[in-house]
Amino acid sequence: MHKKPRLGLIGYGAFGKLTAQHLSPHFDVRAYDPAMDADDAHAAKVDLAEAAGCPVVILAVPVGILEQTLTEIAPKLSAGALVIDVGSVKVKPAEAMLRLLPDHVRIVGTHPLFGPQSAKDGLAGLRIAVCEVRGAKDARRTAAWCRKMLALKVFNVTPEDHDREAATVQGLTHLIARVLLKMEPLPTRMTTASFERLMQGVDMVRHDSPAVYQAIERDNPFAAGVRERFFSLFDKARGELDS
Amino acid sequence: MHKKPRLGLIGYGAFGKLTAQHLSPHFDVRAYDPAMDADDAHAAKVDLAEAAGCPVVILAVPVGILEQTLTEIAPKLSAGALVIDVGSVKVKPAEAMLRLLPDHVRIVGTHPLFGPQSAKDGLAGLRIAVCEVRGAKDARRTAAWCRKMLALKVFNVTPEDHDREAATVQGLTHLIARVLLKMEPLPTRMTTASFERLMQGVDMVRHDSPAVYQAIERDNPFAAGVRERFFSLFDKARGELDS
Repeated sequence: MHKKPRLGLIGYGAFGKLTAQHLSPHFDVRAYDPAMDADDAHAAKVDLAEAAGCPVVILAVPVGILEQTLTEIAPKLSAGALVIDVGSVKVKPAEAMLRLLPDHVRIVGTHPLFGPQSAKDGLAGLRIAVCEVRGAKDARRTAAWCRKMLALKVFNVTPEDHDREAATVQGLTHLIARVLLKMEPLPTRMTTASFERLMQGVDMVRHDSPAVYQAIERDNPFAAGVRERFFSLFDKARGELDS
Repeated sequence: MHKKPRLGLIGYGAFGKLTAQHLSPHFDVRAYDPAMDADDAHAAKVDLAEAAGCPVVILAVPVGILEQTLTEIAPKLSAGALVIDVGSVKVKPAEAMLRLLPDHVRIVGTHPLFGPQSAKDGLAGLRIAVCEVRGAKDARRTAAWCRKMLALKVFNVTPEDHDREAATVQGLTHLIARVLLKMEPLPTRMTTASFERLMQGVDMVRHDSPAVYQAIERDNPFAAGVRERFFSLFDKARGELDS
C-alpha cells in the first residue's frame, strides 16, 4: 500500500481541525497544539519538533502568535520543506515568514475563504486565495492541488491584493456582525427576506474567535482605511436622518 | 360565470403592480395612478373616483403622501367599503386613516414584508403583518384571506408592536444597505459566504425607492431609538479598534 506523505499541522483549533479532516485522506497528519487532548480520527498528536519536521508544514495558529510560532519552528524545519500558512491576512504573515524562516524552506501563503460553518456541506466550490511568497512553482503547485484535490475555487493573488480586498469583504462583515450580535435578541418573527440574509451572514461568523476579529481588523494594513470610509458614510447617513 | 368583485388600487408603482398581479385572479382590479400609462394584464386604468368607489380599496401610495391621498379619497368612498393600506410603517398610517376616513368605512392596516424582489418566485411562505384599525372582524377576515388565498404567513399585531419590530428589521437593513451601496464597487472575487449573504440582503433592497427608505427611517416612531443604539455600538467598536 502506498504510504501517505507526512504533514505537520501546527495549531489544532477550529480551523486546524477542519484542515485535518479534509487533508487526512491525502496525508498522514501530525498535529501539534498544547491544547490538543489526544489522537483523533484525522490527526496524531505529536510534539512541536515532530510536526515541524514534516516535509509539508501547515501553520493554523492565530495571526497574533504567528511570529512567535515561526521563531520556535525555524530551527526544527527539514531542508526543502514546504511551509504554508492559512491566516486571514497575508501581507504581515508573508513578510514574517520570509524574515524568520530559514532560506532552505519553500513558503506559500494561503487564505481559505471559509470556516467550519460555511464548509459544513463540503469544500467543493468554496474559495481560497493562494499567494506566492518564496517559490513561484510552489505557489502554482499548491493552487493546482487545491483545485484538483479539494475542488476549491482558487485565486492566485499577491498578499497586497488579497489584503486590499479582504479589508472590505471580511473587515466590514465582521464589524457589522459584531454590532448586530450586540443588539441581540433581534426579531425573528416579522422579518424580511433581506434581513434574514443579513442575519444568515452574521450567523456564519458568530462563533469566530476574538483572535480572528483582531487579525481581520488590526493586522490587515488596509482595514483601517476601509473602516474609516464606512464610518464616515454612516455618519453622513446619520446626519441626514437626524436633520 | 361568477363576476369578480371590484377592487380599487390607489397607487400603481412597483408594489401596486405586484399587488395587482397577485389579486387580479380574485378581483377585478381598477387602478388609479397619474403615472399609469394604460390598462395592463392585471389592472384597468381608471380615475380616482372610480378606484375609490370600489367595495375594497387598497392604498399602495408612499407613506409620505398617504394623508393627502386619504383626504382626496374620503368623500369618494362607498358606504361600508373596506380600506386597506400596505405601508412599511403602521402607527402613523393607522392614526391617519382613523382620523381622515369617514366613519362608515372599515379599515385594516397591513404590511407585506416582501417586495417585487423577494416575491419573484411567488408569494407562498412570505410574510405579512395585519393590524386591526377599525373593525376586529375585518382584520381577522383579511388575515384569513391572505393565509388561505395567497399562502402568506400572517402575523396579527398591533401597529405599535409592528413598528417596534420593523424599526430593527427594516431600519437596520436599509441603513446598512444604504452605506454598503455607497461603497460600491465592492469585491466580487475573493468573497466569503458570510459577505455574500450580506450582499444578497443588500441586493434585495437595492432598487427600493427613496420614499421607502424615508418611511422606514423617519415615519416609524421607534426607528430613531434603534438607530441610536446601533450607532453607539458602532462608535464603541470603532473606539476599541482605534485604541
